[in-house]
Amino acid sequence: MLIIGERINGMFNDIKKAIQEKDPRPVQEWARRQEEGGARAVDLNVGPAVPDKVDAMKWLVQVAQEVTDLPLCLDSTNYTAIEEGLKLCKRPAIINSTNAEREKVERAFPMAVKYGARLIGLTMDKKGIPKDSDTRLAFAMELVAAADEFGLSMEDLFIDPLILPANVAQDHAPEVLKTLQQIKMLASPAPKTVLGLSNVSQGCYDRSLLNRTFLAMGAACGLDAVIADANDEALVEVSAATEILLNQKVYCDSYVKMFKTQ
Amino acid sequence: MLIIGERINGMFNDIKKAIQEKDPRPVQEWARRQEEGGARAVDLNVGPAVPDKVDAMKWLVQVAQEVTDLPLCLDSTNYTAIEEGLKLCKRPAIINSTNAEREKVERAFPMAVKYGARLIGLTMDKKGIPKDSDTRLAFAMELVAAADEFGLSMEDLFIDPLILPANVAQDHAPEVLKTLQQIKMLASPAPKTVLGLSNVSQGCYDRSLLNRTFLAMGAACGLDAVIADANDEALVEVSAATEILLNQKVYCDSYVKMFKTQ
Repeated sequence: MLIIGERINGMFNDIKKAIQEKDPRPVQEWARRQEEGGARAVDLNVGPAVPDKVDAMKWLVQVAQEVTDLPLCLDSTNYTAIEEGLKLCKRPAIINSTNAEREKVERAFPMAVKYGARLIGLTMDKKGIPKDSDTRLAFAMELVAAADEFGLSMEDLFIDPLILPANVAQDHAPEVLKTLQQIKMLASPAPKTVLGLSNVSQGCYDRSLLNRTFLAMGAACGLDAVIADANDEALVEVSAATEILLNQKVYCDSYVKMFKTQ
Repeated sequence: MLIIGERINGMFNDIKKAIQEKDPRPVQEWARRQEEGGARAVDLNVGPAVPDKVDAMKWLVQVAQEVTDLPLCLDSTNYTAIEEGLKLCKRPAIINSTNAEREKVERAFPMAVKYGARLIGLTMDKKGIPKDSDTRLAFAMELVAAADEFGLSMEDLFIDPLILPANVAQDHAPEVLKTLQQIKMLASPAPKTVLGLSNVSQGCYDRSLLNRTFLAMGAACGLDAVIADANDEALVEVSAATEILLNQKVYCDSYVKMFKTQ
């Protein structure tokens, strides 16, 4: 399970302030902490409140890669910000994200190919997130077709079937699990899958319990990656356990430690 | 997720001693404790060291149902012990277990029908536990056919695809998950599924982590019941969370408490 650390996001006040004041310390501290926690990629999101998103993304990329060699996941709805960020990335990055709208597809896929980046594709369009698995899967098929059309390797496409909070849209969770299973049948090799995991527990009680339980359930259905709290120790332990139980890593008594350090 | 408490088993020294001395207190205390923990059925296994298994099973049934109204799961390879136990059960019980050998099938299925009991069927025969999902599924199909032949309701058949310890047979775990998914496609209504969950972590480090992670992974693949440690709080919490995330119970903030008390 690839954990993409979610914490460098302008939605959090410390990161918002750091971006505004061009203070690299909070960004770099979270980059380090997430890597230590078990993250193997770091999401960078300038947040909604920053006036110059392009400038802010460029700055985040620069200060983050001063302290970590992890892949950076450039998370924005502003493709200029993403592309300017990509130009500065020393290592292959992840674009977060496109959806299945043709206009976005035509911008994001060629950009991923040009910069050797992986791409997260959301199973939705302008009309929003579908309720059922079948419609999610139809969007996933469009994303798979786009990867083929624009020459993105299927293993560089991460499809996100979009989970919503269990307290307001509880019927979505089983549909997402079904979609994960079916995505793996769309192509060979199959595309990868990812979830913005923390969404499942937004506003719920004992968020970590719901997050880590859904991570394990997703893993059994083909979930490859999560954008998640890499400093939630219990979640990282479950991630390590899923790799043992899916026979992806050879069992050893220190399987949790191995997950965090390798 | 139906938790069948595993603790009243002659493999544990306190239960073995209780059976030998006909001291009901340890049995009754574990029956109560498991029910409080979240068990909704109680396994009764006299263990290997008891000379008169029939007498011991009858005694276990009697003393257990003095303190609990939960269904009893009569766990023995000795069908006379099971049948004599069933005669004493005040409420419908669970027979644990048959495998796919014809001789056992012909004894266990009619007994389940006669006593209105549910039946656990193991996906194996004399040759032992198969390594792959396909062979497990072939045995599951034989058990489904037997239910049809002998008139056992499909919802009273619990198929156990048999998990082995991750440290010695790690490749079995993904095969078991695949089997769970496929069992649900064998009939409509589908048979139920069950696992002897604690087996997955026998001899492993942090057993509870592996147990509860595999429970969640199984739940996503159609696992309905586990024979497990009902007093492992973290495991019971994960069981509650899976019911929310599969939309089986309506979300409320006290979902863990509801799971344990209802």
